[in-house]
Amino acid sequence: MPFKSIENLRAACLDLPAGNESALAAVALRQDTLTKPQGSLGRLEEIAGWLACWQGRDLPKLDRVKVIVFAGNHGVTAQGVSAYPAEVTVQMVANFANGGAAINQLARVADAELEVLSLDLDRPTGDFTREPAMDEADFLAAISAGYDAVDEGLDLVCFGEMGIGNTTPAAAIAAALFGGDVQGWTGRGTGVDDAGLLRKVAAIDAGLKRHSAALADPLQVACSLGGRELAAILGATLAARRRNVPVLLDGFVCTAAVAPLARLHPQGLAHTLAAHVSAEAGHRRLLEALGMKPLLDLGMRLGEGSGACLAVNIVRSALECHARMASFTEAGVSEG
Amino acid sequence: MPFKSIENLRAACLDLPAGNESALAAVALRQDTLTKPQGSLGRLEEIAGWLACWQGRDLPKLDRVKVIVFAGNHGVTAQGVSAYPAEVTVQMVANFANGGAAINQLARVADAELEVLSLDLDRPTGDFTREPAMDEADFLAAISAGYDAVDEGLDLVCFGEMGIGNTTPAAAIAAALFGGDVQGWTGRGTGVDDAGLLRKVAAIDAGLKRHSAALADPLQVACSLGGRELAAILGATLAARRRNVPVLLDGFVCTAAVAPLARLHPQGLAHTLAAHVSAEAGHRRLLEALGMKPLLDLGMRLGEGSGACLAVNIVRSALECHARMASFTEAGVSEG
Repeated sequence: MPFKSIENLRAACLDLPAGNESALAAVALRQDTLTKPQGSLGRLEEIAGWLACWQGRDLPKLDRVKVIVFAGNHGVTAQGVSAYPAEVTVQMVANFANGGAAINQLARVADAELEVLSLDLDRPTGDFTREPAMDEADFLAAISAGYDAVDEGLDLVCFGEMGIGNTTPAAAIAAALFGGDVQGWTGRGTGVDDAGLLRKVAAIDAGLKRHSAALADPLQVACSLGGRELAAILGATLAARRRNVPVLLDGFVCTAAVAPLARLHPQGLAHTLAAHVSAEAGHRRLLEALGMKPLLDLGMRLGEGSGACLAVNIVRSALECHARMASFTEAGVSEG
Repeated sequence: MPFKSIENLRAACLDLPAGNESALAAVALRQDTLTKPQGSLGRLEEIAGWLACWQGRDLPKLDRVKVIVFAGNHGVTAQGVSAYPAEVTVQMVANFANGGAAINQLARVADAELEVLSLDLDRPTGDFTREPAMDEADFLAAISAGYDAVDEGLDLVCFGEMGIGNTTPAAAIAAALFGGDVQGWTGRGTGVDDAGLLRKVAAIDAGLKRHSAALADPLQVACSLGGRELAAILGATLAARRRNVPVLLDGFVCTAAVAPLARLHPQGLAHTLAAHVSAEAGHRRLLEALGMKPLLDLGMRLGEGSGACLAVNIVRSALECHARMASFTEAGVSEG
């Protein structure tokens, strides 16, 4: 297990490798020789530079792209915060295995491998209105499972999640890290009605109150209010940084899961891109708080890594333009 | 040649086939059985319905996707409205043929065929500050060339353009059709400086004044202020409607090219989706005037069909989710 203590984990979060600035500069130089008006590919040019910077290669590649979906169950579902029963987490994991979920189709179109990692689904986290979601050992085990899931041979990784009830811990984490009114962070998730939404807000209020002593530390926030799949995404994002694998983040839950890293280190999420902004209330606000500009805005709110996976072909397009377009000289095109 | 007169063309624009409402309804019914919270795929669900409606199939398909880039040259370049010399149009067409342009890379990632159709590049349109861009015969020939380029076997088509100087006719068409200040429609195109931008606005002002008698008719607007590649896109969009081929529109020039159809028929562009909003000033305003919501907003301003082509894998993802996800019953997943 890579992390034996919270302090051990904290040290890793504070000591992050920087990006490769010379690879970034090499991309910028090449971009301006290609047969297009300078800057006319917009964010595709930025993406090419980002890939180079975080892969540490002048000419990045996308031979191996992976989507990892982490699944967890949540004690806070006892508070009536989801429109679906908790057993749907296990049922959807079976659906992933059988190829029937949205993420299966999206991964195929993206030419990405799909891995699903279930985290103790038969042992939900504690109900954070009454106790910490996880104790330290549980939290570190989930962080470590995520950390170990990212191998060095990957060129790009998308993180996703499945966990009935998990927009509640996500909103709790966002509220704990960034403050402001709880209502503004809390959305309908899979589709709770007005009464369910009130129960969600009440549960988060109760959790923030119960764990107030721990909330100054972003890692304690993730431990006491989070969930195993969220912790795994945090660990995986940390591993990706250390293993030169750029990350596409998915929606609200995924972004909330990694937000502690941004609170611990000002450049903590520099190797990640927000693939999309979810329709789930709170995501746009969270991305703004993190200074992230999403690539896509399509009203999606499914999770599973669906938004991240949908952005893979945007990243691929950026790389193919960068790597394979002709220069003005090669093509004999007059420059402006 | 499909259109022998402007009145012939106008009749075709006024008599457009409606979408297949029963195919649209079939998609909506199926969507709500799939293993996801209802509506959680956001615009992907809308896209699946749009494909079905305009292909006229309960289960749409994307076996044949094509990008058609129309190229033309513009007499108005004599007014100093572009940062690039006019010969770049021909040079870029050669670059397309050699596989060196952005659209070549984007079409490959999108798994789309690419066709480039040059329209009399050695015979630029008239300088619209002095004379109509085209006479009626020239205009109808370009419309017809576009019309004939869309064959019935296509499942989706992207239109793009290449034509040094063509953001000037595009802005002129937008200003003529929708009014408002000319500055607001006029952008820097491939990157003109402040003086070039002033020359562009002056040229458009002069064109609007010279052709004021013709501007009440959207087809006369396209003829007197437009360009051959714009007319071809208009003709191709009309053909796509009659041949059950949904259309992805590209940026400012492409949208301006088809805007006359929206002015002639309230549902004239219902079979098209705005693939992206360009960074070119005026595009956002034009999409708003047309009531269209772009799929992508990535700061691109290249043309060539690049934004449209980038959206193909979004459409493909929408279809794959719709066609291949399991239902709640099939997957044994509990409904909310």
